[in-house]
Amino acid sequence: MKKSLGAKTYLYPAPVLVIGTYDEKGKPNIAPVSWAGICCSDPPCIAISMRKATYTYKNIMLKKTFTISIPSEKYITQTDYIGMVSGKNVDKFAKTKLTPVKSEYVDAPYVEEFPVVIECELYHTIELGLHTQFVGKVINVRADESLVDNEGALDIKKINPLIFTPDTYAYYGVGDYLCQAFSKGESLK
Amino acid sequence: MKKSLGAKTYLYPAPVLVIGTYDEKGKPNIAPVSWAGICCSDPPCIAISMRKATYTYKNIMLKKTFTISIPSEKYITQTDYIGMVSGKNVDKFAKTKLTPVKSEYVDAPYVEEFPVVIECELYHTIELGLHTQFVGKVINVRADESLVDNEGALDIKKINPLIFTPDTYAYYGVGDYLCQAFSKGESLK
Repeated sequence: MKKSLGAKTYLYPAPVLVIGTYDEKGKPNIAPVSWAGICCSDPPCIAISMRKATYTYKNIMLKKTFTISIPSEKYITQTDYIGMVSGKNVDKFAKTKLTPVKSEYVDAPYVEEFPVVIECELYHTIELGLHTQFVGKVINVRADESLVDNEGALDIKKINPLIFTPDTYAYYGVGDYLCQAFSKGESLK
Repeated sequence: MKKSLGAKTYLYPAPVLVIGTYDEKGKPNIAPVSWAGICCSDPPCIAISMRKATYTYKNIMLKKTFTISIPSEKYITQTDYIGMVSGKNVDKFAKTKLTPVKSEYVDAPYVEEFPVVIECELYHTIELGLHTQFVGKVINVRADESLVDNEGALDIKKINPLIFTPDTYAYYGVGDYLCQAFSKGESLK
């Protein structure tokens, strides 16, 4: 028996991503987002949503670019912290001792210590309500060399990214490998 | 040292969601998507992306509604299968023995056996390229009563949803609870 819970943003799992931008003075800033997802394969696009009140919103509107750095569980404290303060008042890189690196392809910084980085140009801006959705066209992905296999694929268990739960506001890790896609389904064909 | 991998849709974790729609004859259909995410808190919105060639694309354009049913790991075989065939040729509900239930709020079916269901009205349609992004305004969430606590929140470990890796095409489970958001970050304030 199912129970109705009303109109809510429940979705499982939600990611934990860190958006890197520069402000008008060139100060690098980082902010976490969980309202995000892949949205197109060709051109490769990832959508992130920000509230207008945020420093990152202003920076993206200014520079039309951003990076997405994916934190591993090891950096959960820093990632949690940067969601609690605003770049308006705080130099988050200085405070977390994370290292800003200017992207080679876009005018935005990424986090050197995080294992995977996605460099995006702003492709579409969609006003939805409290949040504005920024669709980023992926220009390049970079990852720690130790994570990359011969096919250029990554091991999610080595990335060790965080999961966010939109209702209980908690972080979880990634669990066990289950199987390849398009494998178990064969039995129903 | 980071290695550049080119323009790719790498993001971790990506969800595994099942989109429910009716066709013009009222036949219920389901299709999995991983190109998806929450995109606005108010109004609550979730974005999913589909290729134009899919049966689900046609159905959403026709009915302007869809549901999102979140499969638990228990249904990995059925979920994998429905991504391998098209609703043009197959009655996927019949083949998987899953039960279609007409949503109370929107003109679309959901999967009775899956623990969480999100009922959406089409809010925006954004042509991105190979994929079209459908932004759904959440009208209602429903969940198995056994999963709902006194505050109307759910336990992701009981939902036991799937994770998809966009580079290695594999399914993973959800791992351990780590901590609440806005907790560990206090130490850096």
